[in-house]
Amino acid sequence: MSTIVSVDTRDIRFPTSLELDGSDAMNPDPDYSAAYVTIRTDAPDGLAGDAFVFTIGRGNDVQVAAIDTLRGHLLGRDVEELLRDMGETSRLLMHDSQLRWLGPEKGVMHMAIGAVVNALWDLRAKRAGLPLWQHLASLSPEELVSLVDFRYLTDAITPDEALAILRAAEPGRAERTARLLEVGYPAYTTTPGWLGYSDEKLERLCREAVADGFPQIKLKVGADLDDDVRRLGIARRAVGPDFPIAIDANQRWDVSDAIAWVNALAEFHPAWIEEPTSPDDILGHAAIARGIRPVRVATGEHVQNRIVFKQLLQAGGMAVMQIDATRVGGVNENIANLLLAAKFGVPVCPHAGGVGLCEAVQHLSMFDYVAVSGSMDGRMIEYVDHLHEHFAVPTEVVRGRYLAPTAPGASTEMLQESVDAYTWRGAHAEVTA
Amino acid sequence: MSTIVSVDTRDIRFPTSLELDGSDAMNPDPDYSAAYVTIRTDAPDGLAGDAFVFTIGRGNDVQVAAIDTLRGHLLGRDVEELLRDMGETSRLLMHDSQLRWLGPEKGVMHMAIGAVVNALWDLRAKRAGLPLWQHLASLSPEELVSLVDFRYLTDAITPDEALAILRAAEPGRAERTARLLEVGYPAYTTTPGWLGYSDEKLERLCREAVADGFPQIKLKVGADLDDDVRRLGIARRAVGPDFPIAIDANQRWDVSDAIAWVNALAEFHPAWIEEPTSPDDILGHAAIARGIRPVRVATGEHVQNRIVFKQLLQAGGMAVMQIDATRVGGVNENIANLLLAAKFGVPVCPHAGGVGLCEAVQHLSMFDYVAVSGSMDGRMIEYVDHLHEHFAVPTEVVRGRYLAPTAPGASTEMLQESVDAYTWRGAHAEVTA
Repeated sequence: MSTIVSVDTRDIRFPTSLELDGSDAMNPDPDYSAAYVTIRTDAPDGLAGDAFVFTIGRGNDVQVAAIDTLRGHLLGRDVEELLRDMGETSRLLMHDSQLRWLGPEKGVMHMAIGAVVNALWDLRAKRAGLPLWQHLASLSPEELVSLVDFRYLTDAITPDEALAILRAAEPGRAERTARLLEVGYPAYTTTPGWLGYSDEKLERLCREAVADGFPQIKLKVGADLDDDVRRLGIARRAVGPDFPIAIDANQRWDVSDAIAWVNALAEFHPAWIEEPTSPDDILGHAAIARGIRPVRVATGEHVQNRIVFKQLLQAGGMAVMQIDATRVGGVNENIANLLLAAKFGVPVCPHAGGVGLCEAVQHLSMFDYVAVSGSMDGRMIEYVDHLHEHFAVPTEVVRGRYLAPTAPGASTEMLQESVDAYTWRGAHAEVTA
Repeated sequence: MSTIVSVDTRDIRFPTSLELDGSDAMNPDPDYSAAYVTIRTDAPDGLAGDAFVFTIGRGNDVQVAAIDTLRGHLLGRDVEELLRDMGETSRLLMHDSQLRWLGPEKGVMHMAIGAVVNALWDLRAKRAGLPLWQHLASLSPEELVSLVDFRYLTDAITPDEALAILRAAEPGRAERTARLLEVGYPAYTTTPGWLGYSDEKLERLCREAVADGFPQIKLKVGADLDDDVRRLGIARRAVGPDFPIAIDANQRWDVSDAIAWVNALAEFHPAWIEEPTSPDDILGHAAIARGIRPVRVATGEHVQNRIVFKQLLQAGGMAVMQIDATRVGGVNENIANLLLAAKFGVPVCPHAGGVGLCEAVQHLSMFDYVAVSGSMDGRMIEYVDHLHEHFAVPTEVVRGRYLAPTAPGASTEMLQESVDAYTWRGAHAEVTA
């Protein structure tokens, strides 16, 4: 038996606002940040579990405080017992009734629990000597189902239905694992499309994205319609008439605005419109989806939990599910989300970028391919070429595809020198003018 | 001009778990707590604004940290400028893009903003020399509309529609104010119905509630159906065949369970079923509402924001709106909720109890009566007789009615000796066994 001896947190912030990398219609000046947690044990293997919540600056200290408050559930606990039944471990944290009041199952406290769950999965995969995607894909359908909290889901998917989905994918696991290791997983790039970039930079980056082999690019929209028409025109001319261009409004619109604005951009044939309105507005997403056909609605990076994903699927408000590795309650809740997507036949194209989101979420898509949906068709992971150098096992994207990681763990461990260099010491102004 | 010179916070926790006051199917051992904030200025009047977020124990420190992170928006600011345009002040806090990432508009960060907004309203009402309900009811329809953030609402209610609702209620304001001061506002009591109480205590408290003049009682249900049948039988016999008994499941069920369980209790004619499932499950609430007619669905104490309330109304999932004073973004967002309820013709029966929730929320119902819905019909405020002695202006309930407070402010100021006596110093075990 070994015991958890420390749960260390760090408030890490990168000064990305200085370059306007990551600027969009709702987030003009993000400082990409991580509320980072490291769980250490007294085991002789010396392995630790690392994970984080991605934030965009102010409030990262609150996110750290929320992770800190979970220490009481972890310190001194038998780590083998926690890792052995990760379904029960997740429920232990999620169902702490006093902490649950702070959500329930949403926002700062929910993301904190997700970070702890993810750190434990990182440790478990390291102990198993496998990358997380492969470790998850080695589990039996029964164990995978035991990881999921079906509370509030059974009107859309039951444990038996989930089991049937996983069993149907089981025979092809070995073949798909081999294929994934050989060809990787499709990526699309958002690098060209930030609102803060000049037209010249936009055009150059669009051409580079095509040359680099990406199958799709994405542009931010929603601040000004004339600008969007001009920028989409530049991008469309740069990439040619048939190349997929997704657009992303980052929650900027009300329902009727969304319908009018997207229809005004229809001539550019967007591959999808992402976050057209509030991530909480399930009925609004459904109304928008009906109003902009055949353009598809994509959403998910701010969807708070499996219960909202369930309803977006039930209402027909989401044709592309964009899970995020650190928004929900960790790997366990994202397995629920993957199963929901499979049940409703909707492709999962994860949100990534930020700090470490590419590293973290690739494991979920790869697990989905091997053991859940069994398909890469119409699926791809967002890719932004920022801040990968701070990770122990950085994402590798080659010719528009994520190479499957082979190092043990969840790829969520940062380099110690980066952790130390970017630990927040109040260096940026706390309030923008 | 005067300036904000301090934003002080306190982590206040009452050891209510020792008595099982407040125990329900999801919250077996709450320690009623307040993340308390006091905003002071250098004005010669010496007035401060006080408010809080109600929590149930662990994590109250995280809620305090979230309020602390808003200091940068307040310290050194011209307080008259902030108070003059509370719509703009609310938006300043809500639309901080970096903090918004932590919700958006939900959970710990959203409630922290709500506490600051409420503290500023407390200060503004104190400066105006009026109780908050009367101060709000003295504002023009135009100013009230300017307080509301209509983002994500316009498919359900536009500013013009809100203005029409407020203008229609304007002629009767003086008459209703006089009536409110004369007769008070209806209260119902949850005191008899906590799960942790014995059958004898339940029966005695039911009889006392009727004798005390309350027009309705409420019982917690959802832990065990046989227990619920027995307890509802005791209550029904104690209060007689026609007296309204509401029931509250505190989110315990999935959709099909809720329908089956409520139908199994139909013989007791519940006045409403409260929180039958996750507060996030709009479509689930609608399905339950269809499945349990004529029993009505009530919800709201955990509804994160106006966007979810909007959809519950659009979907027909909520026949009684139970706003909470500290769950959403403060007075401003609750005015949006009251306007939505008026638009859809749904009565507002606020959630209260906890610490100070009766004190805080009564002002919103009374404002609603005077200036929005113009009616007390079918409306009442929850009442629990706990912890009022810690407030400077405690709620007064007489013969089943809240007396309209007349002291200036929002009634959210705690007594300094209570603040000092119950400031958390780690006295309870941080994790239950």
